[in-house]
Amino acid sequence: MDYAKALPREVRALIREEKITRHTSGMCEGYAQANLAVLPAEYAYDFLLFTQRNPKSCPVLEVSDRGSRSLRKIAPGADIARDIPKYRIYKEGILEGEYTDVSKFWRDDFVSFLIGCSFSFESEMIAGDIPVRHIEEGKNVPMYITNIDCESAGIFHGKMVVSMRPILPELVVRAVTVTASMPRVHGAPVHIGDPLAIGIGDIARPDFGDPVTIKQGEVPVFWACGVTPQSVIMSAKPSIAITHAPGHMLITDVKNVLLK
Amino acid sequence: MDYAKALPREVRALIREEKITRHTSGMCEGYAQANLAVLPAEYAYDFLLFTQRNPKSCPVLEVSDRGSRSLRKIAPGADIARDIPKYRIYKEGILEGEYTDVSKFWRDDFVSFLIGCSFSFESEMIAGDIPVRHIEEGKNVPMYITNIDCESAGIFHGKMVVSMRPILPELVVRAVTVTASMPRVHGAPVHIGDPLAIGIGDIARPDFGDPVTIKQGEVPVFWACGVTPQSVIMSAKPSIAITHAPGHMLITDVKNVLLK
Repeated sequence: MDYAKALPREVRALIREEKITRHTSGMCEGYAQANLAVLPAEYAYDFLLFTQRNPKSCPVLEVSDRGSRSLRKIAPGADIARDIPKYRIYKEGILEGEYTDVSKFWRDDFVSFLIGCSFSFESEMIAGDIPVRHIEEGKNVPMYITNIDCESAGIFHGKMVVSMRPILPELVVRAVTVTASMPRVHGAPVHIGDPLAIGIGDIARPDFGDPVTIKQGEVPVFWACGVTPQSVIMSAKPSIAITHAPGHMLITDVKNVLLK
Repeated sequence: MDYAKALPREVRALIREEKITRHTSGMCEGYAQANLAVLPAEYAYDFLLFTQRNPKSCPVLEVSDRGSRSLRKIAPGADIARDIPKYRIYKEGILEGEYTDVSKFWRDDFVSFLIGCSFSFESEMIAGDIPVRHIEEGKNVPMYITNIDCESAGIFHGKMVVSMRPILPELVVRAVTVTASMPRVHGAPVHIGDPLAIGIGDIARPDFGDPVTIKQGEVPVFWACGVTPQSVIMSAKPSIAITHAPGHMLITDVKNVLLK
């Protein structure tokens, strides 16, 4: 099966059967993918407020009802606990393990937050003849923890995580305008150029995902990233949190163009 | 003093002294105004989730910390309990009274939600040569309870409230594009034309605000309105809620152009 051309429900079924366990970059062209953060209800208000205060890194697409593993809007029929290729469980802010199925850990006080993903605007970039390097190279997008403070809310605080795409100078403005039109999937870049200006010491060594080739003359462009909640969860140390593994997203039934 | 040209902190000071008690339409040109909903903390998560699920009617600009009467971002120095010209107090969903100062009712478990207001895009409309009738007529904007269901969240449910501006047919598209660029202040219209299609039986009798003249050939255009929380509070019946009186807004220090 050509995953790029497949429907979200087809790919989600393969993920549920654990026939797909790799990152989802490039799958189900035209459909939005989502970051996941699951927290006990006692943390839900603070976390929701955190997303409201940090809309560039945490644009919420849907919040589940308490205890529910279902979504009403963005992926009806999906199982939040099984339809992502790889999950992470954090306890007291420490990564405890990675799993392909978290249903046996589910609790009736869990609330799930689904957050927009920059994979959505990549199809718009490609449609606009802006090459996307990690897709060309068959890799996961490179992601970096910056020195940019998020706005705190209750226990949640920490640094913004960004994704990076190298862009030819003559295409940078177009990359800004294409992505600015999609605020629900991180919107316009947060930084253009010098990685050190946002605290990234070595562009060749991302904190999450894979390094990609930056060709002579290309400009690194940085977008706020939905992995930010994981950085924040590591700082805030809630008793338990479940997230997707970076790059291993929930593929939704929402078309990217409807997020404009 | 020409209130249109005054600074927000100057007008807020006059409001605090109760020298201004009228609606704020047209005041402090270029600065955003905000709707207010204050609720006890026990309702805060459900209400914040309601705003997330209903971003067109409830685009949140800032949420106060619990018990605080201050805002960090949109109006530093403002007193939430005194700097709005007229407040409403609802108990169990029933309007209990209107006040020019609610400081004596304040509780340390109150959380304040400040929500974007369509007054912000009116200055953009006027800059784009789209006349705004209620400003021309020195009135409050007409607002209507529609038959459009909001997405519910916990106890919060109810009908969307809209504001209406009559627009010449040749300016309707421009009115859509100008407002679409400002999603944090309600964004693009929710309906164009026939009032009955969204459950408005008599356009001459708004549920809030003032009726305005609709000239021959003009099209009524409807935008989601930040009075929606009041309609929802009347349905959800929380023990207590404080809101602004429709049209009597908090004038913030945020420039409208920064909400694009």
